[in-house]
Amino acid sequence: MEHEASNSAVAVPEQSLMERLREVRQRTLDLCTSLTAEDMMVQSCPEASPAKWHLAHTAWFFESFILSKFAPEYRVFNPDFPWLFNSYYEGFSAFPEKKLRSSFSRPGLNEVFDYRKHVDESLNRLMESGAPPAALERIELGVNHEEQHQELLLTDMLHAFYTNPLRPKYWEQGTGIRDQKNREQGSEIRDQPAALGFRQFQGGLCEIGFAGEGFCFDNELARHQVWLQPYGLADRLVTCGEYLEFIGDGGYSRPELWLSAGWAAVKTQGWRAPLYWWKEDGAKENGADEGERSVFTLRGAVPLSWMMDAPVSHISFFEADAYARWAGRRLPSEAEWEVAAEGIPVDGNLLDSWNLTPVPATNLIRNENGAKHQNENGAKHYGDCWVWTGSAYLPYPGFRPLEGALGEYNGKFMSGQMVLRGGSCVTPKKHIRASYRNFFAPETRWQFSGIRLAS
Amino acid sequence: MEHEASNSAVAVPEQSLMERLREVRQRTLDLCTSLTAEDMMVQSCPEASPAKWHLAHTAWFFESFILSKFAPEYRVFNPDFPWLFNSYYEGFSAFPEKKLRSSFSRPGLNEVFDYRKHVDESLNRLMESGAPPAALERIELGVNHEEQHQELLLTDMLHAFYTNPLRPKYWEQGTGIRDQKNREQGSEIRDQPAALGFRQFQGGLCEIGFAGEGFCFDNELARHQVWLQPYGLADRLVTCGEYLEFIGDGGYSRPELWLSAGWAAVKTQGWRAPLYWWKEDGAKENGADEGERSVFTLRGAVPLSWMMDAPVSHISFFEADAYARWAGRRLPSEAEWEVAAEGIPVDGNLLDSWNLTPVPATNLIRNENGAKHQNENGAKHYGDCWVWTGSAYLPYPGFRPLEGALGEYNGKFMSGQMVLRGGSCVTPKKHIRASYRNFFAPETRWQFSGIRLAS
Amino acid sequence: MEHEASNSAVAVPEQSLMERLREVRQRTLDLCTSLTAEDMMVQSCPEASPAKWHLAHTAWFFESFILSKFAPEYRVFNPDFPWLFNSYYEGFSAFPEKKLRSSFSRPGLNEVFDYRKHVDESLNRLMESGAPPAALERIELGVNHEEQHQELLLTDMLHAFYTNPLRPKYWEQGTGIRDQKNREQGSEIRDQPAALGFRQFQGGLCEIGFAGEGFCFDNELARHQVWLQPYGLADRLVTCGEYLEFIGDGGYSRPELWLSAGWAAVKTQGWRAPLYWWKEDGAKENGADEGERSVFTLRGAVPLSWMMDAPVSHISFFEADAYARWAGRRLPSEAEWEVAAEGIPVDGNLLDSWNLTPVPATNLIRNENGAKHQNENGAKHYGDCWVWTGSAYLPYPGFRPLEGALGEYNGKFMSGQMVLRGGSCVTPKKHIRASYRNFFAPETRWQFSGIRLAS
Amino acid sequence: MEHEASNSAVAVPEQSLMERLREVRQRTLDLCTSLTAEDMMVQSCPEASPAKWHLAHTAWFFESFILSKFAPEYRVFNPDFPWLFNSYYEGFSAFPEKKLRSSFSRPGLNEVFDYRKHVDESLNRLMESGAPPAALERIELGVNHEEQHQELLLTDMLHAFYTNPLRPKYWEQGTGIRDQKNREQGSEIRDQPAALGFRQFQGGLCEIGFAGEGFCFDNELARHQVWLQPYGLADRLVTCGEYLEFIGDGGYSRPELWLSAGWAAVKTQGWRAPLYWWKEDGAKENGADEGERSVFTLRGAVPLSWMMDAPVSHISFFEADAYARWAGRRLPSEAEWEVAAEGIPVDGNLLDSWNLTPVPATNLIRNENGAKHQNENGAKHYGDCWVWTGSAYLPYPGFRPLEGALGEYNGKFMSGQMVLRGGSCVTPKKHIRASYRNFFAPETRWQFSGIRLAS
Repeated sequence: MEHEASNSAVAVPEQSLMERLREVRQRTLDLCTSLTAEDMMVQSCPEASPAKWHLAHTAWFFESFILSKFAPEYRVFNPDFPWLFNSYYEGFSAFPEKKLRSSFSRPGLNEVFDYRKHVDESLNRLMESGAPPAALERIELGVNHEEQHQELLLTDMLHAFYTNPLRPKYWEQGTGIRDQKNREQGSEIRDQPAALGFRQFQGGLCEIGFAGEGFCFDNELARHQVWLQPYGLADRLVTCGEYLEFIGDGGYSRPELWLSAGWAAVKTQGWRAPLYWWKEDGAKENGADEGERSVFTLRGAVPLSWMMDAPVSHISFFEADAYARWAGRRLPSEAEWEVAAEGIPVDGNLLDSWNLTPVPATNLIRNENGAKHQNENGAKHYGDCWVWTGSAYLPYPGFRPLEGALGEYNGKFMSGQMVLRGGSCVTPKKHIRASYRNFFAPETRWQFSGIRLAS
Repeated sequence: MEHEASNSAVAVPEQSLMERLREVRQRTLDLCTSLTAEDMMVQSCPEASPAKWHLAHTAWFFESFILSKFAPEYRVFNPDFPWLFNSYYEGFSAFPEKKLRSSFSRPGLNEVFDYRKHVDESLNRLMESGAPPAALERIELGVNHEEQHQELLLTDMLHAFYTNPLRPKYWEQGTGIRDQKNREQGSEIRDQPAALGFRQFQGGLCEIGFAGEGFCFDNELARHQVWLQPYGLADRLVTCGEYLEFIGDGGYSRPELWLSAGWAAVKTQGWRAPLYWWKEDGAKENGADEGERSVFTLRGAVPLSWMMDAPVSHISFFEADAYARWAGRRLPSEAEWEVAAEGIPVDGNLLDSWNLTPVPATNLIRNENGAKHQNENGAKHYGDCWVWTGSAYLPYPGFRPLEGALGEYNGKFMSGQMVLRGGSCVTPKKHIRASYRNFFAPETRWQFSGIRLAS
Repeated sequence: MEHEASNSAVAVPEQSLMERLREVRQRTLDLCTSLTAEDMMVQSCPEASPAKWHLAHTAWFFESFILSKFAPEYRVFNPDFPWLFNSYYEGFSAFPEKKLRSSFSRPGLNEVFDYRKHVDESLNRLMESGAPPAALERIELGVNHEEQHQELLLTDMLHAFYTNPLRPKYWEQGTGIRDQKNREQGSEIRDQPAALGFRQFQGGLCEIGFAGEGFCFDNELARHQVWLQPYGLADRLVTCGEYLEFIGDGGYSRPELWLSAGWAAVKTQGWRAPLYWWKEDGAKENGADEGERSVFTLRGAVPLSWMMDAPVSHISFFEADAYARWAGRRLPSEAEWEVAAEGIPVDGNLLDSWNLTPVPATNLIRNENGAKHQNENGAKHYGDCWVWTGSAYLPYPGFRPLEGALGEYNGKFMSGQMVLRGGSCVTPKKHIRASYRNFFAPETRWQFSGIRLAS
Repeated sequence: MEHEASNSAVAVPEQSLMERLREVRQRTLDLCTSLTAEDMMVQSCPEASPAKWHLAHTAWFFESFILSKFAPEYRVFNPDFPWLFNSYYEGFSAFPEKKLRSSFSRPGLNEVFDYRKHVDESLNRLMESGAPPAALERIELGVNHEEQHQELLLTDMLHAFYTNPLRPKYWEQGTGIRDQKNREQGSEIRDQPAALGFRQFQGGLCEIGFAGEGFCFDNELARHQVWLQPYGLADRLVTCGEYLEFIGDGGYSRPELWLSAGWAAVKTQGWRAPLYWWKEDGAKENGADEGERSVFTLRGAVPLSWMMDAPVSHISFFEADAYARWAGRRLPSEAEWEVAAEGIPVDGNLLDSWNLTPVPATNLIRNENGAKHQNENGAKHYGDCWVWTGSAYLPYPGFRPLEGALGEYNGKFMSGQMVLRGGSCVTPKKHIRASYRNFFAPETRWQFSGIRLAS
């Protein structure tokens, strides 16, 4: 998903929008502090983009859709950038093939930083001089756009570092993973995660889609009625340990568990486990035994044994669907997820927690003294991993794309993709909401995507 | 779509089932009377199968799922056939790759005819000796399965003959197309088709899915409630003439009209018109001017000018969707189509009419004396072309696949495909109904697939 | 290799040319007596063509290059055939993509037979009425062209029947393979094939290329001088048994034995043995133990154990090259092979022997009474398998392609291919000679291609 | 071509080898002075590698084949580097897929510089302490290896900068191209290049392959006799202007001029001109008229009109072959080229001239005052572009690869490639010689490859 979108009405006061803009723009830079200019050149799979490109493209968005239109004296930073950093807006300009982004050694990283500064200063001037409501609406869109690229920047760097045979770490400092390691060493018996429970819902005539004040994307509208059968929704995500049972039970070699297209992917792609699981041969640097599975994370490789109670991540829709069939359950529809989310505050293992990886949804974590303590991120409706729903990504009744080239932000991707809900450990907390619709092709695995079962 | 399925309850009396079985089995043979053994070897695209394979596979279905299970003394016709003619039932046996079917020169056509006879006689014996209800249910499934392959046999032969540079005709005798030719020659002024009208529906809480007595596939269940907004549905299909306007207006060169995946297909596949439209160079055998477009049909090539008022066919979902966007409309959902079909008898340009190609949906056809007469097939809810809906092919709430290998008939294809409704000019009339769900990948064009607009 | 070519001078008297023409034309028909019209539709790999196409194309060659030019009253049999059955002569006409040949169900086989008859009768009339020398030259070319397609017809049918999961037999009657079976059963001790010997040659200034009277292709000219180092050439081909030792010694898993492109092919194509070797699972119909290797031949599957002393066949240049490196030898250059062939009469296991498969090159074959007898086909310079040389297929100094479209017969393929020499068990005896250059891409395996070592 | 090789005997005194080593190692760094760390990450086609990888791999070669073997106290710089920077030596270690090199953001450029320094210092110590002859031989091999990668680094950066839509310049300072521009502007009439002449050679029994003292690669041995027909060799390379005539005469649309595989490449790849020629639309920054062709060089884009008399470059073997056929000539064999080179000193437009692009081979260049002056690089046997020969890259009689993993340097690539001779404008002068064999696949275009005709 590359994104761009709309809001029905801008209710945030101008001042706070300016603060939010500054905060988000700054966080993009903060996410790059551990990266070198060389790291930010890597594009390791067709879905990903170089981190430098994300930096430039998010500036481009403000330049092209706000400054060039609403700031009368705005001077384009570089006459080549408007087409160079266009992602996919056919209605705006021609643009380079996506795969060429890895050749953008020029402009250099410093020039891209200058570009961002130029854009920031211009936005500042525009807002201080009293931007019209239409400009403010689009600035809010730009803020949300940039948050989407923050998540993509992190998922793309995870893939880039996994592809590098040296497997560098994106982030090295203190981590919940380390806590898990202590836990392992401190107690001989691994506590089991809480048994999976299901919250029950009555269904009937419900409403989904964005309502109320604040921002939403065009694909969250129109709010509309849907009829739901009674259903249950799991109170936490499926864990790595549970997923390992599926593997151990022949999950990847039993065609009866899979959709036909999923089974074809298993055979063609050679899937045997989630994307970032692999077996060590030899080196024990990360504490894993020889032959033991490891999991690659933004904090480097960790033994799978430390992650057993954390939600399984980086699986395709096909794997989520096969797991659910194996477990005698199914995936929820997006409406079921959204109705269940009503009234639940946005909280969980999101980017702001800075775990950068899913963490156990359990109340059984022990501290170094052996005392159990509550994992504050446990069993939340949001965070850790986006959950694959069983819903195809299609327009809502009454969907109207934004005017002009911005109409390409979401609408043209409404084919061949499945909806995901709930945000992940690299989604900014202010970015997500109950009506938020993420979407990816069903074979996608490089995002933080997992499973919440329905019944 | 290759198929196989279930019924809730068999209400048809045994005797009539036997008659229906004979009728359907015979029609499969009838469809081959104009074909040579060589014609029946051709597999001209990955989606298609050789006609001989369809003959054998439909016998295999009865042998494998009915006779081998319910007929105690049944002797398998040839010990290799159970795996050789298995299409895709992983739960039944291993099976050859689909693309190898074109190498099945042995068994020869005569042996396949013998196979069918052997199966027919065995079925006869089974039914005369009093088959158990479970067997009768599956026989009815086999009958419906064979009807699906009748349609596929014709669409596959159309593709085979289009691929042959000599462009042979599947059927040469008297045709509605000839009538259209007369019409063209008999009147200087081409009458316009009736203007497109829209029937209005209130929506609200509706039910879809199969109900009542008789046969249905497992994917039509469970019948369930859906909530629909008020909507309109076109009273006829989009014609070739209307589609030509879309082409003339740059339809295939304007990315803003297309879904992203559709636009990629346009560029990759070089689409410029429906599948079987092409430009003559030189030869005027079929009456077309040099440079004029022709349409290839089961009755051979005809000038597009003769087909202007007939429904456009052999377009992908992406083309249907782009046309609808160009026309300021949209495609209906499958629920909208089904609710609108309630109470309308199954009638239209179906296989039984033996047109073998879409015909004009207009009341303006003139006879040779210039008098207008009603086209009996015009403006029907069924027939001519399957209509692409905007609905992804997903399980209904409460969907339960059949037991055992037959559970693979429909369920495992519920990913990456769009639903089509209403039957085509090569669908047997008794095969179709309001709740019937056909499905193909959105880029599919070799089926008789067209457009009914919604508003 | 699809072919067409030239001769320097026609020394064969007209009468004998007519006889040779009749003989060759008849043999093409004879090769089809065991085939059905359906068999003759199969095109099971991109390199192959349907047998029916070979029948038509060889008639097309005479029609297009002789009759249409030299027979004043010649009437083209069917106005579509001149472009329909053109293989690759850009200078003659447009032609269908090769892969479409499998869609040519029309014309039917009988029409193709009529086409051949029409061409035969017209050729007869032309020759009886005194054809000009230029026409006679091209008739001789057409005869040789047809012989090439006889070999291709057989290799293509072998592949077609191997692809058919039922593995039919091209020919069922009495065979040397059966003799080998008797031998196996009649003597407990399998006699070893004669040890490999090497004939020594002085080299120095030699000549290669066609000389003397009779026909040759343009690619065998100009005869020219080459300088050779002293060399040795094996007195027989490498056997299946010897090749099995190479496999047993890790031949397919040791990169140091392979050219880089060959090693890539091993990994990409999953090569583990020659093309038509496979392991039985279960069925013992052909006498093989479960898990034992079988070899598929034009006479059906036979256990590898019966073929141990026969030349290994259906290997790529890369496999031949790797085997030679493993054996501490090398492949001969085409000049080395040709110089060694001087003065040796054309004799060996060629098509005329009707073995249709390589046979042991050994003098140790025993009859049922245990008495050794000489295998008349043993240790010949010609036949069994074409031998891969280490020479790239390039123009000889002074090479001049034929005039006009016929110049495309050989010349345009002089890139990316390796030369093979010596003919095979499906090469007509009259077709082959010392200067004959066959050529295929180095990864090709569907031809009868084997190994003669040099030192 | 990635390389590594052998020498028969080391005749250079140790002292001078040390100087040569320092000189070559320093030049690699010099070639990077205009590049950023980001530039050195780009890998823009499967044939190319990132410049940083070239830096590391050339250090790896010395570490792996000299220091680790001959320097007793040598400490590997980083334990991962021996496998990380192995290019293709299966006999040495496993190595990463080539395409992954673009993900090597770590180690950073500075670490690679440190690696080089570590290796340089260790080599220094080894040589100062009296390295054994076997070590010195391999050091000389390493020097030649590094020179090959210098050329590759430049060709890869040219492709990288061409792929970047901004088309940056590798080098901006004073250039012969600028002189040509002045020439254009200074004289209304463009002087024609000297007419093409042919030097005649008698042929007969000749010798090719390396002889004498000094270094050579294993593929230049054994020196051996060949028999050549009398031949002529052009006295200069084919120019851009001449090649433009070929294009204007339909060169890219006439199949009769092409080898079959070449014609397939024309259609598949859409070739219409040499690799780095393109048409401007709009921007005239480089002085070209709208719609005029430009040529991309290491000095940026220049109008084709300024390059008319310079040798055409960046064409495939197929294009060279088609041009020769169009011109009624042919390409020389490698033996013809080498025999003609005997006794001609190595001189021409090589890397040391620092033109970085082919320059006119003409004596008609005028200075700013209009006076003609001799182009010192004109009409040389070496330099400007490698010339495609008509010879496949095969082992010479008596070829013996180096011992051990180094045997993979050249030998395993002797399949599917054509020989090129003579060096280019980015080949170091000391690197090239008469017996030097370069080789690439016939469709390769990213190297400086051109045409010298033979007759």
